[in-house]
Amino acid sequence: MDLFRRTALATILFNCVSSAVIIDYHAPPPNISTLFNNTIYYTWRPKSHVLPPYGHTGDPCAHFYDPADGSFHVGYLFSAGVGPSGIAGAITDDLVTYFDVDENPTIIYNGGINDPVAVFDGSVIPSGINGTPTLLYTSVSYLPIHWTIPYIKGSDAESGRRNFTKVKQGPVIPGPPFPITNPTGFRDPYVFQNPRLDRAVASANGTWYTTISGGIHDVGPCVFLFRQYDANFRDWEFLGQWWQEPANSTWGDGTWAGRWGFNFETGNVFGLSQAGYDAEGMIFTTNGAEWSEAPIIPQVSQFREMLWAAHDLTTGPNGTHHGGKARLGHFGICCGGQAPTIWFYAFGSIRHVHDRFVIYLWLTNNDFGNNGFPTAQQGWDGALTTVRELAQGTVASVVDNGLIAGPASWIVAGRDTSAGTVELTTLKQTIAREVYAAFMSKATRTFVEPARTITASNSSGVDFVESPVSKAFMLKTCLTFPPAARNSPDLQAGLRILTSDQESTNVYYQFSNESLIIDRSNSSAASATTPAMRPEDWSWYAESTQLAFFHGGSVGVEFGNVTVWEGLVDAWPARSY
Amino acid sequence: MDLFRRTALATILFNCVSSAVIIDYHAPPPNISTLFNNTIYYTWRPKSHVLPPYGHTGDPCAHFYDPADGSFHVGYLFSAGVGPSGIAGAITDDLVTYFDVDENPTIIYNGGINDPVAVFDGSVIPSGINGTPTLLYTSVSYLPIHWTIPYIKGSDAESGRRNFTKVKQGPVIPGPPFPITNPTGFRDPYVFQNPRLDRAVASANGTWYTTISGGIHDVGPCVFLFRQYDANFRDWEFLGQWWQEPANSTWGDGTWAGRWGFNFETGNVFGLSQAGYDAEGMIFTTNGAEWSEAPIIPQVSQFREMLWAAHDLTTGPNGTHHGGKARLGHFGICCGGQAPTIWFYAFGSIRHVHDRFVIYLWLTNNDFGNNGFPTAQQGWDGALTTVRELAQGTVASVVDNGLIAGPASWIVAGRDTSAGTVELTTLKQTIAREVYAAFMSKATRTFVEPARTITASNSSGVDFVESPVSKAFMLKTCLTFPPAARNSPDLQAGLRILTSDQESTNVYYQFSNESLIIDRSNSSAASATTPAMRPEDWSWYAESTQLAFFHGGSVGVEFGNVTVWEGLVDAWPARSY
Repeated sequence: MDLFRRTALATILFNCVSSAVIIDYHAPPPNISTLFNNTIYYTWRPKSHVLPPYGHTGDPCAHFYDPADGSFHVGYLFSAGVGPSGIAGAITDDLVTYFDVDENPTIIYNGGINDPVAVFDGSVIPSGINGTPTLLYTSVSYLPIHWTIPYIKGSDAESGRRNFTKVKQGPVIPGPPFPITNPTGFRDPYVFQNPRLDRAVASANGTWYTTISGGIHDVGPCVFLFRQYDANFRDWEFLGQWWQEPANSTWGDGTWAGRWGFNFETGNVFGLSQAGYDAEGMIFTTNGAEWSEAPIIPQVSQFREMLWAAHDLTTGPNGTHHGGKARLGHFGICCGGQAPTIWFYAFGSIRHVHDRFVIYLWLTNNDFGNNGFPTAQQGWDGALTTVRELAQGTVASVVDNGLIAGPASWIVAGRDTSAGTVELTTLKQTIAREVYAAFMSKATRTFVEPARTITASNSSGVDFVESPVSKAFMLKTCLTFPPAARNSPDLQAGLRILTSDQESTNVYYQFSNESLIIDRSNSSAASATTPAMRPEDWSWYAESTQLAFFHGGSVGVEFGNVTVWEGLVDAWPARSY
Repeated sequence: MDLFRRTALATILFNCVSSAVIIDYHAPPPNISTLFNNTIYYTWRPKSHVLPPYGHTGDPCAHFYDPADGSFHVGYLFSAGVGPSGIAGAITDDLVTYFDVDENPTIIYNGGINDPVAVFDGSVIPSGINGTPTLLYTSVSYLPIHWTIPYIKGSDAESGRRNFTKVKQGPVIPGPPFPITNPTGFRDPYVFQNPRLDRAVASANGTWYTTISGGIHDVGPCVFLFRQYDANFRDWEFLGQWWQEPANSTWGDGTWAGRWGFNFETGNVFGLSQAGYDAEGMIFTTNGAEWSEAPIIPQVSQFREMLWAAHDLTTGPNGTHHGGKARLGHFGICCGGQAPTIWFYAFGSIRHVHDRFVIYLWLTNNDFGNNGFPTAQQGWDGALTTVRELAQGTVASVVDNGLIAGPASWIVAGRDTSAGTVELTTLKQTIAREVYAAFMSKATRTFVEPARTITASNSSGVDFVESPVSKAFMLKTCLTFPPAARNSPDLQAGLRILTSDQESTNVYYQFSNESLIIDRSNSSAASATTPAMRPEDWSWYAESTQLAFFHGGSVGVEFGNVTVWEGLVDAWPARSY
């Protein structure tokens, strides 16, 4: 469990705080909304995650590997709360520790001619204009932008910023090409190179492409595809729609790939093989999908899902057609699924670093659903997930029965009829190897819980022999289910974490619907005294560090190789707070 | 001669003037550049022209006939000299007298999201958004814009303004359609309707079109054509290039149609028959052409010409193609010619008023070539020409000899072989009938000069029996040349106007090159004492009002029907100065 740092009895002096407050984390919480600003700055602040020193974190974006010095730049939408906002950035050499690019980490603000209202997501061509890193970003002139309302023409466009001074010209892509006049969105340029696409649409080797995510009212969500037209990346040729889906449709019955919704955001495109980054590999696209149940309320997305798809590259006759609704070709969406957003809805930004594509997702925290969260008392909100690396994943020796039928989030890559098994291919995410190694090597304490098999239901948990003394730890275990589990729909098995007499959180696998459940209905005592807070708003008590095995149903489950590495890593060694 | 009002010994108290100055217009001028601001406000101020109460006049534009109250709105680019600038407007019911729309006549300022830098020419759909007058104008985000330099992407776009509040959306036409990425210009939308064009490109009756004037680097000047796409005029479909010419080419040898140059500005499209306005008539296009001799100096247009062409409407197979360099069809440019800019280069704006198309042109005065002119001392600069009305003109009984061969500014519309004559068709401009009538009916003094035939050269002139006492008058005469004139290349005949012992201006027809010559080399004494001024900067002395007949060569010319109407009309009866 990779989570949070907290200093008990913390006294915070930060920003506008003019009076010290002592909080006792062994006692019930106060009404947090009555506290001074920044009083609970450290209470739930992640230790090992990317987040700004203060203020609001939004979508991860503008990530790039700088060929000049070998550093990897990790950006995110950032707002200090007052004044213009934009994209902030940090630099990492190891994906473990990060350094703000400056005391104020903002690398681009809104307020220019092209972006008077806002700067939204962008992505970077590492060797762009004059060979310098060049940011293609969403420049916003008019708001609101939302898939539920008619499009304000010219509201969002894609502008250029070179290393990173705004280029003194209008947007490079001022809007969707005629006759697409009523998109549901048109934002989040994602620049990429792909030799397979070069061949498919007869581009020169190394041509840059950009996706623009959005959709078309009354048609459906889509990803628009543009091609670099000139050496200075000033003009982009519209190739067609890289990916489009009927409005509010699903892949299969939606079980494995969620709902495409009405509008796509933050589309990313990348090629993977089993080893990871592979320009010639299978092409994947990720997208945030927005949707609501009827009746749709203007400017409200009830649901957001981070989706992915694997594409087949077959160009059609309109493959290089300019304008119109030409589809680049038929894309067999062979597998889809919800990205494991763990706790919250998340947008991702996927970039090639060294030999891998890595992904950071947005932990939205109190965004989207809890506007009453005491953000001012915390002094920050939101973070990025621990970085993960991506590969084309293979699951071997899967029993060849009805459960493997699609459309699902895998394809059957091979079949052994004699053994009665198949090999499945899907998108694989794992914690980045450097982070994984650092969490182990830098641990302040490491202990192993003896393996055991639990056969009887015990929803209050079977306590670990030893538990962490803090809430910052990584835990690894392997659960083995017997064949009888298939006939045991009530079977649940997992862990009870962040536990004390007052609070606990259950994380378990539920056989009946093949789901990983995170039950946060008793996670935090804060909601008892702060009306705007929810039971899932993190754990409060200092003593809520206990671990236990969680089990439901009558079939036994074996918990093996249980290891805890406590301490994690301080991702921001240069920050003074 | 329709020119200027001047108050001798004027004492000007206006704007920033804090001290009165007495100027004696019977004595040599002072060094004008040393005077207080606005001291010579009245010296050369036109009496019967459209111009703002103070400040700079630019292109006429945004003219429209308001169906709500029957008034005709006459706009022009306007800058007060400080603060934002834009388009100003006046209202007229009779084309003779005008009323500023407000004390500050500006109807639209730059400084919005779409036009942070400048507002350039626009034109009006009288019944546009919600049935109200809707202005489509050039919104400028970046400067410089000039055909001699690479295009700054997004610098000029076309935005909407409804009656006239800026529409809260991005530009309706953000730039030329891909792959036109390096225009020499892209500005000056001119909206129009034309039933012949409706049929040619299969539009609904009454569809609106807009031209955008400009050109393409290394290709040539052109007029881009767009078609209304939606009821709110928010989107416009690119149909192709309405008119294009090779860079720096000419029609024929250039004698009759000038030089197309490198970039077009201020294109207008309208249909005419012999009676004037005719939606089904011959289609004409006017354009300002910009060019320079080699070596071309960045941001300098040595030459500007106001050109016109008559078009044949033959759509080609690409007539409705979106994007690309598709030409709407082949346009036989049957006749071209320089608009009679009289004194200065001028841009026109042509609108349908009642039963006519009328044209105002820009008298640029000291713009383009005399940056040292004491504009501050004058307090204003520039004006529009007296309004003219347009028709398809017919010239009958022209001798059918080699001189009628084209390409020229006419077509041979008929031929009478027995008489040995042809009938020619061309663009006809005449002073608007209301203005013409008012100049006669409102004259403070009318006198007739006896007709005479002058046979001997007399370059200093043969004085009129009677001359005006002011410089505001209209003169009409008819010169009859004998057949021998064709063999007399040195023949010149015309008038010497604004004459005194110190100054004079010759206006005459010169047979050798069929030209109307205005010789201003001795027009003004101001240049003798004000170094930045030129001899052609208008007449100075109060007594420079004498008229004379001018004649050169040895063939006699008859001057008949010589009538002078003195006084003209005060075009601005409601102004207090």
